[in-house]
Formats: sequence, structure tokens, C-alpha cells
Amino acid sequence: MAKQKKQPRPKAETPKGFRDYFGHEVAEREDMLRKIAEVYRRYGYDPLESSAVETVEALGKFLPDVDRPNDGVFAWQEDDDKTWLALRYDLTAPLARVYAQHRNELPTPYRRYAMGPVWRNEKPGPGRFRQFYQCDADTVGAPTVAADAEICGMLAETLEAVGIDRGDYIVRVNNRKVLNGVLEAATLIDPSDPSRFAEERGIVLRAIDKYDRLGDEGVMQLLGKGRRDESGDFTKGAGLTPHQGALIMRFINAKSAYEDNLAANPIGDVIVEQNLINAAVCDYLREIVGPSPIGNEGIDELIQISELLDAQGYGPDRIVIDPSVVRGLGYYTGPVFEAELTFEILDEKGRPRQFGSVAGGGRYDDLVKRFTGQEVPATGISIGVDRLLAALRAKGRVDGVAKGPVLVTVMDRDRMADYQAMAAELRSEGIRAEVYLGNPKNFGNQLKYADKRDCPLAIIEGADEKDKGIVTVKDLALGKKLAEGLTHEEWREQPAQEEVSRAKLVDYVKEKLGG
Amino acid sequence: MAKQKKQPRPKAETPKGFRDYFGHEVAEREDMLRKIAEVYRRYGYDPLESSAVETVEALGKFLPDVDRPNDGVFAWQEDDDKTWLALRYDLTAPLARVYAQHRNELPTPYRRYAMGPVWRNEKPGPGRFRQFYQCDADTVGAPTVAADAEICGMLAETLEAVGIDRGDYIVRVNNRKVLNGVLEAATLIDPSDPSRFAEERGIVLRAIDKYDRLGDEGVMQLLGKGRRDESGDFTKGAGLTPHQGALIMRFINAKSAYEDNLAANPIGDVIVEQNLINAAVCDYLREIVGPSPIGNEGIDELIQISELLDAQGYGPDRIVIDPSVVRGLGYYTGPVFEAELTFEILDEKGRPRQFGSVAGGGRYDDLVKRFTGQEVPATGISIGVDRLLAALRAKGRVDGVAKGPVLVTVMDRDRMADYQAMAAELRSEGIRAEVYLGNPKNFGNQLKYADKRDCPLAIIEGADEKDKGIVTVKDLALGKKLAEGLTHEEWREQPAQEEVSRAKLVDYVKEKLGG
Repeated sequence: MAKQKKQPRPKAETPKGFRDYFGHEVAEREDMLRKIAEVYRRYGYDPLESSAVETVEALGKFLPDVDRPNDGVFAWQEDDDKTWLALRYDLTAPLARVYAQHRNELPTPYRRYAMGPVWRNEKPGPGRFRQFYQCDADTVGAPTVAADAEICGMLAETLEAVGIDRGDYIVRVNNRKVLNGVLEAATLIDPSDPSRFAEERGIVLRAIDKYDRLGDEGVMQLLGKGRRDESGDFTKGAGLTPHQGALIMRFINAKSAYEDNLAANPIGDVIVEQNLINAAVCDYLREIVGPSPIGNEGIDELIQISELLDAQGYGPDRIVIDPSVVRGLGYYTGPVFEAELTFEILDEKGRPRQFGSVAGGGRYDDLVKRFTGQEVPATGISIGVDRLLAALRAKGRVDGVAKGPVLVTVMDRDRMADYQAMAAELRSEGIRAEVYLGNPKNFGNQLKYADKRDCPLAIIEGADEKDKGIVTVKDLALGKKLAEGLTHEEWREQPAQEEVSRAKLVDYVKEKLGG
Repeated sequence: MAKQKKQPRPKAETPKGFRDYFGHEVAEREDMLRKIAEVYRRYGYDPLESSAVETVEALGKFLPDVDRPNDGVFAWQEDDDKTWLALRYDLTAPLARVYAQHRNELPTPYRRYAMGPVWRNEKPGPGRFRQFYQCDADTVGAPTVAADAEICGMLAETLEAVGIDRGDYIVRVNNRKVLNGVLEAATLIDPSDPSRFAEERGIVLRAIDKYDRLGDEGVMQLLGKGRRDESGDFTKGAGLTPHQGALIMRFINAKSAYEDNLAANPIGDVIVEQNLINAAVCDYLREIVGPSPIGNEGIDELIQISELLDAQGYGPDRIVIDPSVVRGLGYYTGPVFEAELTFEILDEKGRPRQFGSVAGGGRYDDLVKRFTGQEVPATGISIGVDRLLAALRAKGRVDGVAKGPVLVTVMDRDRMADYQAMAAELRSEGIRAEVYLGNPKNFGNQLKYADKRDCPLAIIEGADEKDKGIVTVKDLALGKKLAEGLTHEEWREQPAQEEVSRAKLVDYVKEKLGG
């Protein structure tokens, strides 16, 4: 009880860009993550929970020229040895560290899944938070594209398992090597000087990435001299020759070119096989990359992936080769994948738009090498948990896992023990139940509380009821329905309550809730 | 592809005091937390996941005299407005912030549970980590001791739900107010000067807290002049008079005094009722605190709690009033509770000792007030997740939730698609299965991998098998048993493998795993 300096009251606020998750928000996310984990587990993936805190060195965000290397991450220095620590910004960099650290004990290949929060020290914006969940599955130590195919198939299964119907999603697959082959064919790679044309390549890759939004014309402008957007801002282009630009455009449109061709020359009512579409796209890509070795290697891999998926029954309605996918560009070394939800939702202005991407990933063969010096192949997928959950909510596919409890009201505060015993009886039958623990004086407040908690039933045992050996059970759910359009007084007169023998209370409640 | 400065390889290490959790460690913890959440939920508690990052101001660890207020917490400063942020060190301080921030939308009383990691910037030690899990349940806005009783009962239910048998645990309840009453009776509180005797009170409280370890004699020394331990270190005592010391000792021994009395004067074979024990202890406490108003208020509360628990069938075999419980001393304002596991385990030196405390909590009526200025009553419990999990492991009560997958081996790398299809078939029946994705050249490596993964079965389909329409299924679990004492060559000859028709593979595996 030492005297304390008087201080102003602290503000009751989360830090900027952070938020809390309440009740059903937590329960729904957990429910979804449980379903995802169940699929991952069935595929042989083992859970891993790495520490939330890593050394900045291990995370690989070390910036030599600044005193405090915290761009993008939340970082601080240890008191004793001044090591820089940081909160993880994803689950992949920690996996590389874990695998490098424990590679002698871990099985190879190592299939692992991980789910949990990650942190980004970024400017928060609407719907953009500095702490969010990721849910990843990765295979470390498997060089074969069978590992990539497995991840794609599993991603499709996962989306269906959480409640996205077949037809409402598509997993699109591309390969960084094909992209490199196209750049090679377009003479945008100079084997004798890897850094030459780096700027042009950057512009090309960013342009392809914007294809969904800008379409043919916008991308062509970016490949050429540049593009002025609606606001008047000018983005410098790559300055490609028309021939180079045409090559890139043919690449982006490889899939739709096949589809246009199919539309012009229909092959009848037969079901279009995965191999047919994908083989056709690959043939087309082969023309574009010409003799580029890396390009042809990439196409071979796409064909293998396509065949593996076909053998497992993943048709083009679920997984398709699509050269317009270019994601995480600096990072991936081979196949890349993206899952998109294809149904429409209304945007903030009420306009319909496609829901868009909810997961992405690919092969990254160099991340573990940072630690060990030896190349360790790895491939994986990351699901954007909050976006997928938003999609499920938009589709009405979240379970009402957070039903309110049955409320035992308090009519006589000296009989608290009886009310507690009543709630205990209900709970012993698995029924969610609680006693009102606020000030019981104003009964109206108890009913308001029940309303706020979404309680299905309220149980009342006053002196009269006690004498008669009964309890009154109010059906609040029914009461709510009846109350639409009725005044509070009228509602209280409605028959949405019944008198039940005290001895039969549990059976009555069970029946009510079951129905 | 800009040129990068060459840097030394990063170390593949967790920061000091952090660790990773693998496979079954993650699964077992999740399983336990799920069971705990299910009990909490049944009691009407709603989940809350607050942000892991809080302002230092909101956490209440602000130290005015240092530039970097990071004792005990991991803290850093925002780039723009220089706000100090920190990782939460428990789940209670964030709850107070959340309730103060959202009190207009939240129901009152607000019952919430929370589970997740917390971080402490402390010196790590053996088995002592800087990130660990907590699992809390709290009721905010309920002044009645019925809320405390509910928490105690729920704690007992929770321990049983996760697999601690009745008889292997005890929930002990005390009340800070009784303690204050005893201090008042011992003239260690001066109402006209609250800070007087603060040092003595501190020594007394710490001495009581050590009663388990030091026993009567050691505590009496600490109450008097002081105590010299085995190593020769001297701890200064409170310097109480013999009369004051005797009063404190009577308080600590209130429960055992009753038990001794009961042993001397047995009341026959009748079951000792909760009320009998607890009422006797309370009578005894009443004598000790004398006329102290706060002391008598505390005893009244203990009696109420005892009656409420009795009405719900929690006998003294589960929950008992025990004045020797003094925990979180600076923090609590009323009832305090502690759950102890009473079975013995062997310590690091092989000596048997009681497992000890796995959960604790109490009433803290002033935490929300920091933010709002208005007193908001609150009470809650925190389970030490890692300790409870260790107890369950010691008792053999963790489910083998992380069984290895069935391994489809790769005999012919050109037939990967067939193997993948086989695994997919198994998975579609809910069987955990995977294809070997390492280099398949050395078959021995595939079996070593299966061993490391704890695979129950390995499936082999080489060219011969393919021609005959069969597959070979190795029973690795059986193989392991046979292998005890056998050489690798001998083991390979054992009949722990069977040929099965390819068409009947799934049924065969299902039966094998089911049996």
C-alpha cells in the first residue's frame, strides 16, 4: 500500500490498427480453422506452433542502414545482448527457421500446417488490421511437383470442407519458370548480366498482376509507354517494342485464347476434360516460350501437375492452369497457385463484384538455404482466414455456434443456491445455462440482459411458483417473433410462456431446445 | 534482381526463452483447450479474443522514471506518435481494457473466456518460457459472491472434464477481507494511516504464502525476528509480538485445527458435509478476527460461497475453505481461489512430491475503475495451461490425437498419379493418408520415414503387384513390435505384411485401423 503518484486515467483503447473479436466472431473462426485443420491432417500434415517472436535476423527483414530495422515489422531490442526481436509477419519465414533448426529430428519431407496470428507494422486502413490470422500448409524437402499438385488438390478440398460449393471457387495454377521463359523469349533476360532489364521486368510483372483490374488495354499501355489512370496519375511503362508486348499479351491470354477457340468450334456436349484444356493451354505456351529451356521446364511441370490432378478427379471446374496468375513475385521459384471465389458480392457502393482471392502460395526453394547454405525445396499455401470467413458469412455458411444460454432468473435473492442448482441440473444434461448475476431488483433488466445474450429461454421461479412446485418458462425466441409490431405490454400477455412442473424442468427445456 | 550485399547466414534459432511446439504437443493442447472451452461455454461464458498488442498505458505497467518502460513486458514505440506498445502479459488486464472500451455494447454481467499466448520479458529458466498459454474465465459486473462460487464450481468441473479425477484435485477458497480482518485484529492496519505497517504486512503475507514449504516453524520465524535458511541466507522477519504472531498462526491453521479436532472427536461414519467443515472453520475465523468489520464481512462471504457450493453438490472433497490460501496479494479485493492437484509425481531428483497448483484467481473490483473511474466488480480464474497439460501427461490422460498417416510408398516414380489416387481414395473415407514425396529411389528411406512419422501402415504397389491387381500392406505397428530384438533383415521376413486385392484396399485399411 505504498503511496502512488496520481496519474491521468489510461485510455481504454486498442492500439491503432488492432481490434478485439467477440463471441460468435471467435467461435466461427475457430470452427472454420478446425475444419481446415481436419483436411490438412487427413492429408498427413502435422501441426506446428512456432513462437510468435523471432529474431529479426531469422525473419530476414534485416536492414543494414537503419538503427531500428522495423519497416513492416514490430521490432524491439533485447535488454541484455541487444539482439533485435520481432513479431512474425507470416508463417513461412518461421517455418524456414524451424526446419533449418530442427532438420535432424524432423521427417523429410516435412508436411506441416500452422494457424495463428501474424503482425504487420503497416498503416492501418478500413478493414486492414495490423494483426490477422493466417492458416498455412507447407511441404518442406519434396522437390517433386507432386507436392505442388497435392497442395492444389488439398486447397480445393479445404474450400469445399468449410462450405464453399464446387463452382463457387477456382484454383488457378501457373509457374514462375514459364514466366521466366516468356521474359527470356521477349529478350528481357540477359544471361550474361542478370541485373539488366530488372526494371523492365518489374514493370511487366506488376502489369500482369493488374490484368484482372485493367484488362488488355490497360496492361498493353503499361507494357508500352505507360498509362494515365482516371485520376490523371501517370504510371511509367516498360517501354517494350510492339513485338515484345504482343508476346507478353499472348502469354497472359493463353487460357482465354483456348476458351475463345472452344466457343468458336464447340466440341459438342461431351464433358471437357482437364487434360484437354490444360494440354491445349500448354501447347499454346510452348509456342510462346519457343526454345527457352527454363520456359519449357516450367511447361513440363505444369503438364505433370495437370496430369496428377486429373488422376485424382480434379477437373477444370476446380483447378485450372492459368498463365495470368503471378503472385508473390520476388519469392517463388516454380509453380504458383491462387484460389479465387467466383461468386458475386456487393461492394461497399452496392455494385456487384467477384469476391476474389482467398488463398495463394507456391514453391520457394531458397528460403531454408538462407540458414543452411543447402538448397531445400519447399512449397505451400496460405489461406487468408479473415477473407475466407467473410466469404462464408456472405454465403450464410457459418454455423450459429454461439447460441445464448438458458437464463435462470433471480426472483428472490435469498434463494440464489436454488437457482444455481437449477442451472447446474440443466448443464449436467449438456444444456448451456446460467443464473442472472447482476442486481436482480429490476426484473425488466434481467429480461433485457436475456435479450442481449440471445437467450432462447428464461426460467422464473418466484415465491408463488415455488409454493406450487412449478416454474415458468418464457420462450424468448418465440417472444421476439411475437414482439414484432407489438408493444412491450402486449408482448407480456402473449402465450410465449408456460408453467412447468419443477421436477420436469430439464426434460421440458431439452425438448424446447431440441425442437 | 537488384544486387544484394553479402551477409553472414542468419542463425536458425528461436530467441532465448522461446520455443516451438510440434505435432502432438500442439494437438494435445488444442484438445485440452477445447474441453475447457466447452465447460466454460456451457456455463454461459462467451469467447473473447483481444489483440495481443496493447498500449503500455492500458496494460498498466507504465513506469514514469525510465525511458523504456519494459520491465516484465516486451515493449516498443510506435514510429509516428511514439506511443508505447507492448505484448500482453496476461489476459486479465486486457479484459479490463476491453470491458471499459465496449461496456455500452456488452451485456452486464459480462461472462467471458479467453485462451491464448501471453508474453513476459523475464529471464528464461529451465521449463520457464517467455511465451506461454493462459486460459481464463471471468465475470465482470457481478458484485455477488454467487459469481465467485460459480467460478469455483466451474473450475472443479473443468478439471474433471479434461481428465483429472475427483480426489486428485482440490479447489481451496479464502477471502482477502478475512486476511485484512486478521491484520486488523493484530493491529497491523492503522485506519488513520493506511501506509503504516505496510512493510510488516508485506512480510506477513509473503510468510503465509510460503506456509506450504516452510511449515509452522519457518513461518513463525518469519513473523518474528527472521529466518536463516539451509544455505545460511537470512530473511528479515516482521518483528511481530508473540501475541500478534500467535493470531496469524491460528488463522493459517484454521482448517487443520478443525481437522485435528475432528480426528480427536470422530463423529462416526456419517459423511462430513461441506457445511459442517466450512461452518466450523468460519466459526473459528470469527474468533480470530474479533470485531473487525472487514473480517466479518469476509467470513459472511465465505459462508455464502460455501452454502451456494453445497447446494450444487460440491462437497469438501472438491472445494474447501482454507485460510492458508493467499495469492496475487496486491491485486485481489475479495474471495481468492486456487486449484491444486493432490497426486504425487516424481521431481527432477526422483523424489515424490505433490503436483501442486494449476489454476488460481479471485475477485478484483478495481481494475476496470482505472479506466472509467467507476468501480466495476469482477472475478475470475486463470488456468496454467502448460502445467495442467503436464499433469495430464503425467497421468496418461492425453489422447493420442496425432496418429501418423497411412503411407503410400512410391515404387515407380512414373506412376505418381496412381499413388496419389490411392491416397485420395483412402482420404475420401476419412483415413489419414499420404504419398511419399521424398526421393523414392531408396526404398529403405521410405520405411525410415514411415517409422519417424509413426505410420500405422505402408502400402506398396510395384510392377508385380500392379500386374496381379494387388497391393502389399505392411503393418508397421505390428512390425515394430516384432522388431524388438530382431535385426532389420529378420524383421523384413516377418509376416507383418499381407497382399490385398487393389479393389479391396480401402476396406482392408479401414478394418486394420479400426481394430
